[in-house]
Amino acid sequence: MKTLTGKDLAAAIRAQTQAEAAAGVQPRLAVVVATADEASLWYVRSIAKAAAGAGIACDVVDLGPGAAPDQIAETLARLSADPQVHGLMLQTPLPPGASAQELAAAIDPRKDVDGANPLSLGRLAAGLPAFPPATAAAVLALLDHHEVELAGRRAVVVGRSTVVGKPLAHLLLDRHATVTVCHSRTRDLAAVTSQAEVLVAAAGRAGLIGAAHVAAGAVVIDVGTNPTDDGGLTGDVDFEAVSGVAGALTPVPGGVGPVTTALLLRHTARAANLP
Amino acid sequence: MKTLTGKDLAAAIRAQTQAEAAAGVQPRLAVVVATADEASLWYVRSIAKAAAGAGIACDVVDLGPGAAPDQIAETLARLSADPQVHGLMLQTPLPPGASAQELAAAIDPRKDVDGANPLSLGRLAAGLPAFPPATAAAVLALLDHHEVELAGRRAVVVGRSTVVGKPLAHLLLDRHATVTVCHSRTRDLAAVTSQAEVLVAAAGRAGLIGAAHVAAGAVVIDVGTNPTDDGGLTGDVDFEAVSGVAGALTPVPGGVGPVTTALLLRHTARAANLP
Repeated sequence: MKTLTGKDLAAAIRAQTQAEAAAGVQPRLAVVVATADEASLWYVRSIAKAAAGAGIACDVVDLGPGAAPDQIAETLARLSADPQVHGLMLQTPLPPGASAQELAAAIDPRKDVDGANPLSLGRLAAGLPAFPPATAAAVLALLDHHEVELAGRRAVVVGRSTVVGKPLAHLLLDRHATVTVCHSRTRDLAAVTSQAEVLVAAAGRAGLIGAAHVAAGAVVIDVGTNPTDDGGLTGDVDFEAVSGVAGALTPVPGGVGPVTTALLLRHTARAANLP
Repeated sequence: MKTLTGKDLAAAIRAQTQAEAAAGVQPRLAVVVATADEASLWYVRSIAKAAAGAGIACDVVDLGPGAAPDQIAETLARLSADPQVHGLMLQTPLPPGASAQELAAAIDPRKDVDGANPLSLGRLAAGLPAFPPATAAAVLALLDHHEVELAGRRAVVVGRSTVVGKPLAHLLLDRHATVTVCHSRTRDLAAVTSQAEVLVAAAGRAGLIGAAHVAAGAVVIDVGTNPTDDGGLTGDVDFEAVSGVAGALTPVPGGVGPVTTALLLRHTARAANLP
C-alpha cells in the first residue's frame, strides 16, 4: 500500500505561493474568529504561521466567543470593502445563533479564499470561476499529485457538508468521475463505499471507515480531523485496518491537512492578483 | 407497474397558485427569449398560456436570435430592477457566445423563479432558502405526490447539467437519499443505474435507459424531452421496455413536464409575495 502524504505537495505549493506573493503586491489574509474552541484557535495560529512563512500578511480579527451575528456580519462586510485585504475567511465554530452559511454571504466572492460564500459554491457547481473550499481543493490536489485517474471512475464521498462533501462532489464531477455522496442516513454504508475506486471520508467520525468499507486496491483520502484524548488528531479512516486493503491511503495528520493550509495561502496570493 | 402521471398534480398546483395569485398583488413573470428555436418558442407560448390560466401576467421579451450577450444582460438587469416584475427567467438556447450561467447572474435571486442564478444553486446546496430550477423541483414534487420514500434510499441521477442534474442531486441529498450522479463519461452506466431504488433520467438522450438499466421495482422519473421526427416528444427512458421492470415510471409527455410549468408559476406567485 502507498501512503499518500501531503507534506511534499504542501511544501511545493508553499514555495510557489511564496514566489507569487513576492512578485506582486503583498497578499493579506484576514481571518475572523469568534470562538474559544482550542482546536480552532490552534488551526488559526497555524495558518498565521504558514502565511508568515510564505510572505503573506495575516490579520486575525478575534471578536471573542460572545460576538453577535450582526457584529460578525459587519466585520466581514468591512473587511470585504477594505482594499488592503485580499483574502477573507470566517473560522468556525461560531457563537450560538450565528449561521456560517448566512454570514459567509457577506464575504466578497473575489476574497472568498475558503469558498464559504454560497455564491462561490454555486459558481463552482455551475462551472464558473470561483475559489473552492481549501479542504475540497486539497483532496483534488492530492489525487492529482499522486496521479490518480478520475475520469470515468467511481468516486464515493462520505459526508455531505457544505464545506467539504458537497463542493468536493462538484469538483469530482467536473473531472468526470461518477460521484456518490453518502451520509449518516445512508443504509449499509459499507456496501456503497466498497464500490468506490476513489473513496473520500469526510464525515467527522473517528474510525468510521474500516476494512469492510474499502474495495481492494482503492484509493482512500481521509479528510477527518477528529481530536484524540491525548490532544492529537485522528482521521475518519481506521488507518491500520484499511492499509491492509486499500491501494493507497492518506495519513492523518500529514495528509490532506497541510495541503489545505497551503492552498488557502495560494488562493490568497491569487486573490491579490485577480484582474 | 404504476404510471406516475403529472397532470393531476399539475392541476392541483395550478389551482393553488391561482388562489395565491388572486389573494394578493397580481404576479408578473417576464420571460427573456433570444432564439428562433421552434421547440423553445413553443414552450414559452405554453408558459404564457398557463400563466394566463392561473391569473399571472406574463411578458415575453423577445430579443431575437441575433441578440448580443450585453443586450441580454442589460435586459435581465432592467427587469430585475423593475418592481412590476416578480419572476424572471431566461429561456435557452441562447445565441452563440452567450453563456446562460454567466447571464443568469444578472437575475435578482428574489425573482429567480427558475433557479438559474448560480447564487440560487449555491444557496440551495448550502440549505438556504432559494428557488430551485422548476424541473428539478418538479421531480421532487412528483416523488412526494406519489409518496415515494427517499430517506436512506439509493437515488441515481443520470445527467449532470446545471439546470437539472446538479440541483436535483442537492434536493435529493437534502431529503436524505444516498445520491449518485452519472453522465456521459460514466463507465458501465447500467451497472450503476440498476442499483437505484429511485432513478432519474435527465441526460437528454432518447431511449438511453432500457430494461437492463433498471432494478426490478425501481421508481423511474423521466426528465427527457427529446423531439421526435413526427414533431412530438420522447423521454430518455424506453417506456415500453422499462415498464416491464420498473415499479413505477413517469410518461413523456404528461409526467414531469406539466408539473414543471405549474411550479414555475407557483414560484412566480410566491416571488410576488416574498416578505
